[in-house]
Amino acid sequence: MSYNSFGHLLRVTTWGESHGPALGCVVDGCPPGLPLTADDIQVWLDKRRPGTSKFVTQRQEPDQVRILSGVFEDARTDGQVTTGTPISLMIENVDQRSKDYSDIARAFRPGHADYAYFAKYGVRDYRGGGRASARETAARVAAGAVARKILGAGVIIRAALVQVGEIAIDRGRWDWSQAPENPFWCPDPETVSVWEQYLGEVRKAGSSVGAIVEVEAVGVPPGWGAPIYAKLDAELASGLMSINAAKAVEIGAGFAAAALTGEANADEMRLGPGGEMVFGSNNAGGILGGISTGQAVTARVAFKPTSSILNPRRSVDESGAEIEVLTKGRHDPCVALRAAPVVEAMMACVLADALLMHRAQTGGGAFAPGRDGRR
Amino acid sequence: MSYNSFGHLLRVTTWGESHGPALGCVVDGCPPGLPLTADDIQVWLDKRRPGTSKFVTQRQEPDQVRILSGVFEDARTDGQVTTGTPISLMIENVDQRSKDYSDIARAFRPGHADYAYFAKYGVRDYRGGGRASARETAARVAAGAVARKILGAGVIIRAALVQVGEIAIDRGRWDWSQAPENPFWCPDPETVSVWEQYLGEVRKAGSSVGAIVEVEAVGVPPGWGAPIYAKLDAELASGLMSINAAKAVEIGAGFAAAALTGEANADEMRLGPGGEMVFGSNNAGGILGGISTGQAVTARVAFKPTSSILNPRRSVDESGAEIEVLTKGRHDPCVALRAAPVVEAMMACVLADALLMHRAQTGGGAFAPGRDGRR
Amino acid sequence: MSYNSFGHLLRVTTWGESHGPALGCVVDGCPPGLPLTADDIQVWLDKRRPGTSKFVTQRQEPDQVRILSGVFEDARTDGQVTTGTPISLMIENVDQRSKDYSDIARAFRPGHADYAYFAKYGVRDYRGGGRASARETAARVAAGAVARKILGAGVIIRAALVQVGEIAIDRGRWDWSQAPENPFWCPDPETVSVWEQYLGEVRKAGSSVGAIVEVEAVGVPPGWGAPIYAKLDAELASGLMSINAAKAVEIGAGFAAAALTGEANADEMRLGPGGEMVFGSNNAGGILGGISTGQAVTARVAFKPTSSILNPRRSVDESGAEIEVLTKGRHDPCVALRAAPVVEAMMACVLADALLMHRAQTGGGAFAPGRDGRR
Amino acid sequence: MSYNSFGHLLRVTTWGESHGPALGCVVDGCPPGLPLTADDIQVWLDKRRPGTSKFVTQRQEPDQVRILSGVFEDARTDGQVTTGTPISLMIENVDQRSKDYSDIARAFRPGHADYAYFAKYGVRDYRGGGRASARETAARVAAGAVARKILGAGVIIRAALVQVGEIAIDRGRWDWSQAPENPFWCPDPETVSVWEQYLGEVRKAGSSVGAIVEVEAVGVPPGWGAPIYAKLDAELASGLMSINAAKAVEIGAGFAAAALTGEANADEMRLGPGGEMVFGSNNAGGILGGISTGQAVTARVAFKPTSSILNPRRSVDESGAEIEVLTKGRHDPCVALRAAPVVEAMMACVLADALLMHRAQTGGGAFAPGRDGRR
Repeated sequence: MSYNSFGHLLRVTTWGESHGPALGCVVDGCPPGLPLTADDIQVWLDKRRPGTSKFVTQRQEPDQVRILSGVFEDARTDGQVTTGTPISLMIENVDQRSKDYSDIARAFRPGHADYAYFAKYGVRDYRGGGRASARETAARVAAGAVARKILGAGVIIRAALVQVGEIAIDRGRWDWSQAPENPFWCPDPETVSVWEQYLGEVRKAGSSVGAIVEVEAVGVPPGWGAPIYAKLDAELASGLMSINAAKAVEIGAGFAAAALTGEANADEMRLGPGGEMVFGSNNAGGILGGISTGQAVTARVAFKPTSSILNPRRSVDESGAEIEVLTKGRHDPCVALRAAPVVEAMMACVLADALLMHRAQTGGGAFAPGRDGRR
Repeated sequence: MSYNSFGHLLRVTTWGESHGPALGCVVDGCPPGLPLTADDIQVWLDKRRPGTSKFVTQRQEPDQVRILSGVFEDARTDGQVTTGTPISLMIENVDQRSKDYSDIARAFRPGHADYAYFAKYGVRDYRGGGRASARETAARVAAGAVARKILGAGVIIRAALVQVGEIAIDRGRWDWSQAPENPFWCPDPETVSVWEQYLGEVRKAGSSVGAIVEVEAVGVPPGWGAPIYAKLDAELASGLMSINAAKAVEIGAGFAAAALTGEANADEMRLGPGGEMVFGSNNAGGILGGISTGQAVTARVAFKPTSSILNPRRSVDESGAEIEVLTKGRHDPCVALRAAPVVEAMMACVLADALLMHRAQTGGGAFAPGRDGRR
Repeated sequence: MSYNSFGHLLRVTTWGESHGPALGCVVDGCPPGLPLTADDIQVWLDKRRPGTSKFVTQRQEPDQVRILSGVFEDARTDGQVTTGTPISLMIENVDQRSKDYSDIARAFRPGHADYAYFAKYGVRDYRGGGRASARETAARVAAGAVARKILGAGVIIRAALVQVGEIAIDRGRWDWSQAPENPFWCPDPETVSVWEQYLGEVRKAGSSVGAIVEVEAVGVPPGWGAPIYAKLDAELASGLMSINAAKAVEIGAGFAAAALTGEANADEMRLGPGGEMVFGSNNAGGILGGISTGQAVTARVAFKPTSSILNPRRSVDESGAEIEVLTKGRHDPCVALRAAPVVEAMMACVLADALLMHRAQTGGGAFAPGRDGRR
Repeated sequence: MSYNSFGHLLRVTTWGESHGPALGCVVDGCPPGLPLTADDIQVWLDKRRPGTSKFVTQRQEPDQVRILSGVFEDARTDGQVTTGTPISLMIENVDQRSKDYSDIARAFRPGHADYAYFAKYGVRDYRGGGRASARETAARVAAGAVARKILGAGVIIRAALVQVGEIAIDRGRWDWSQAPENPFWCPDPETVSVWEQYLGEVRKAGSSVGAIVEVEAVGVPPGWGAPIYAKLDAELASGLMSINAAKAVEIGAGFAAAALTGEANADEMRLGPGGEMVFGSNNAGGILGGISTGQAVTARVAFKPTSSILNPRRSVDESGAEIEVLTKGRHDPCVALRAAPVVEAMMACVLADALLMHRAQTGGGAFAPGRDGRR
């Protein structure tokens, strides 16, 4: 319900501004007894950390997470586990450099949230975008690490960039093992150098481009999600669209489904040797009627280009004066380069929430055709 | 929170199955004192009613709505107004024809929710798709009529089809006045006959195709929506993706934004003669940082093709037997032909909710640059 | 969240006015596969039905419930079961007699919600209290019937009146079997005739009195409820206080706990022969730290006297004129005489919701001391 | 919805354990532009701080609050104001003394939440009660300080103790100015010394007693609250009952209303000289039909005695062994001595939330009888 929370049973509330003392989140509703240490979270934060290549912001943030509550020693294992009480996670801001922003304190930067925040609230923290900064996504990634613990090892979530600016990958060369091996989360090894050169030029030109991230969750059992307004696709759409700079979301075949015939779109079904449902295709993105089918849950998210660019754009300021705005200092030529871990985290949070919701209503088992049909 | 409700302050809960005695919704949180009669709602329901052309299902449903609560005579005007208490709306199902469906009671129709519902619940109402039927959208349209009353005449919401199957309109010929004048909600008069012939062939072939609906809301003031997880784009994404058969949602430039440069994407700003903000383009779809900017709020939704087709597709049934499924009897060759009123209704509900949320937190006024800046 | 809904995972939304065409509720989130027919609900509605004795309103309402959605035949049992989709329940109003109320259309009746509704909304349905009428509680009782199905036979919920006006029962004579046998839900057989004479006099005097209802739930396992703001006592307090005319709620020893010493209050624990926890007393009302302990969950609710009385009271009307108000026609001398089934229903709804919440977060089992301690 | 959050539009999420590194809360939904500094919050925290008299725990906690987000300099006033984004508040735990608790790590202390938490979660932070510790109430008090800013100076909230153990005050001597002047929040100056001696004896005996706190909010306009499940009395009941050790809540006449006649209970109305509604009594506690009437909103909360006492009580431990438990070290002889600021805070939070809810649905004005009746 509230503006800065998402999830129903796994409820994540984030807080913090780009240049405040810290940012963080409270993860409420986590099942008890799950092993969880700061290291378990840190490993994911490190994947989205700024300053790791010349194509992402040079802001130096260690993004060290602290667990302030919700875990305790487990007498039976000597390890630290969740207790079922709210998990408070905090990341201190270190490299804030407020001075960089002072000259644009009253300007409305085109493409940024400056004007919208001012129009709504009449006051705004102009330092680095304040609450609208993509730094908020660190809190999502931290929460996603908790969500992964709930999902367990049986659900594998992985994201990759499939398009940067106008250059898409060749899906025929898709290799998941490559995505984490390059700074672009590119699953097509031959496209890496192409993007490298392209983004180098974009960066030198002081410009920026957008990108498209694709994510899949393998191992989701049938039955997660719920009809109508808690459809798994609707929950994913909301979660993914809430990420900074996201402007489009599609599930499965997405927009391409509009051009398909009913014959081509409807994924045919057969039973596999173990009695499991086997689908002939996955246009549905693993979701029918809002409920998972056991296929991989797939989605794509489009991110607009970074609005902070070195080239001047026309705007006005709070006083109504006509101005030109350009962003000096560090910036990402493609903000989506760091989006893959965030997209994964949102997928994890949505699925973990769906797991809990499903367990609540049904007890959690799944029916199987060809058997008794009872859980 | 709950599976069959959406909205925060304007809370809509829908209920009903395709072949049950009735369907309906409860609209809670509506402001008091708004004139509201059944006719005010009926006019919108008539726009999505089945049986109105040969391209939509021939099921004959008058879709007459009754208001069961939440309105009362207003002593000052002699008219009927909302009282602030929950508005219960009911539409009886008339043309149910359960017999049409008895032969597929245990089959999982490809592309339909049959298997997913069974896997989740272990029991399902197989008549006409049960709860997963697009008949549920009648309740959304009814709720949307209430939402429009809240928004008032200043906010104009209108939708059109921009692509059917593989055939897109020519946006250069866009004429809003044409959309309600043809059975396809087509804003490009020259494409009407093209779609007509195309869909005729699709129908004769017993096939189906998908479509893309575009919607805009003009007159939304700056300031609606909220940061992070209640972003207006996230709310729209959730609301639109929850519509039956929707598989993709984009706001503003959407997926195309990924290919833009920062210079091209960031909508420039100037002040208009009346001191209002004037944007040079609308790639943002009227939303920055999750908050409306005063530009038209724009979105597009992709619908997959109707899964009920006359041509056989492979599947299994509840017993695990391998079967072929085809749909006899009436069906829509393009379910999205009736989606435009539904998309409008969801836009209306999301915006009315955002209006109430904004009024709650800020009192409801909007700041203006170049003035004192205070509400 | 919304004004006319309660519950988290078992979400009940009620609607309807005293003199509208009907009232009802939507019960969302019910687990699938539970046998449910209208008769299962009717049996509970009949317990709170008006017109059953001379001490309750003579309004003649059959209160026949219809199930409009959410149930379907179960192929395995030939019975009707819940499907997991929203259950819409409707009760038509039959004996509305709007004319009785026309003379007080603009009056604010003391003790009633008339003025408060008018002050909030500027418009109100004055017929029989409109939305504020105790007829709304029929919807709660119907929802409670569904909740009992979720809880199963292992949880027994029963309520009784322990005080009417100034006359309390003798708790030493408590006999649960007596409560359903008299029109007062009195568990002390010797007090029945005392109340009968007392209420006869109250009724003849055109006056009214309040009452206190006590409720217990036996068979609740340890572990239901959750810390801090979802404490089982807080949920019960909210649910019970939301009943019409309720003005106080206590759990376990309640107000009396204030006067106890720590020694007297803290319920001692021992293990029973089967390894179950046995408590020496139940001052906690079965709840510690907001979580059930396995003891009976106990609560008491105080109801104010019926505000509709035959004797004139001073007030004003909408025009600001000073008036005297008295209620002609039928009324309850003690509205709480019909409250016991409503209190039971709210207890059932709160507990069923807690069951689902507990199952979501923990899987649903309970730890036991003295064993391995693992679920 | 979530376990550790309360409020609808003013949404407070608290976190932290008694002996963790810190505790805190996130306050989401606060209107923008309200002056707010750490000092504004600290003043209320200091009122509930431990260690301030010999009758409360000697744990030394400065309870210094830090604002980590949600505020920013206001260019127009040079002061710090809320920005409308989430306000994160943190209080570090200083005097944790974990060693005090190590000997009872596996014991279930009677009257405490130990067993219930273990039964639910299978793991618990046994240090000082963990999440169930009354230290959590510090976060409520901090949130309450924000809520008071929203309410403004026109709403005065004040609480007092009216009974300690078996000794009640003489209400005829009630003097609000006295309550903050003694360590007991006692509004009856002559009872102060009686309680002082009484509690001294209780403390020396190693025992404890409960207490009753009364709270009122003066200046609440008519119209706050909402029908049925968001009744202001239900919201207050939930909020107050969620406080540690609370076991009963009453509004207005509360339990005493059960013994009143309809004539005595219904508060008569007249118009005052300024056209305002004047009531002849306040049995309703300022709430009719769940909506405020303009009278003082009044409530009472009963707190059970501190369960930590020096005298042994019988229990079992995690292994199932029969044990005796007593609490060594510091403890409060009457935990409710520090409850008044917490009760005030919860009243403030509930009312601020109701203000926002009312403004959302109605625009916020109030109707007045005897005038045009329009807002």
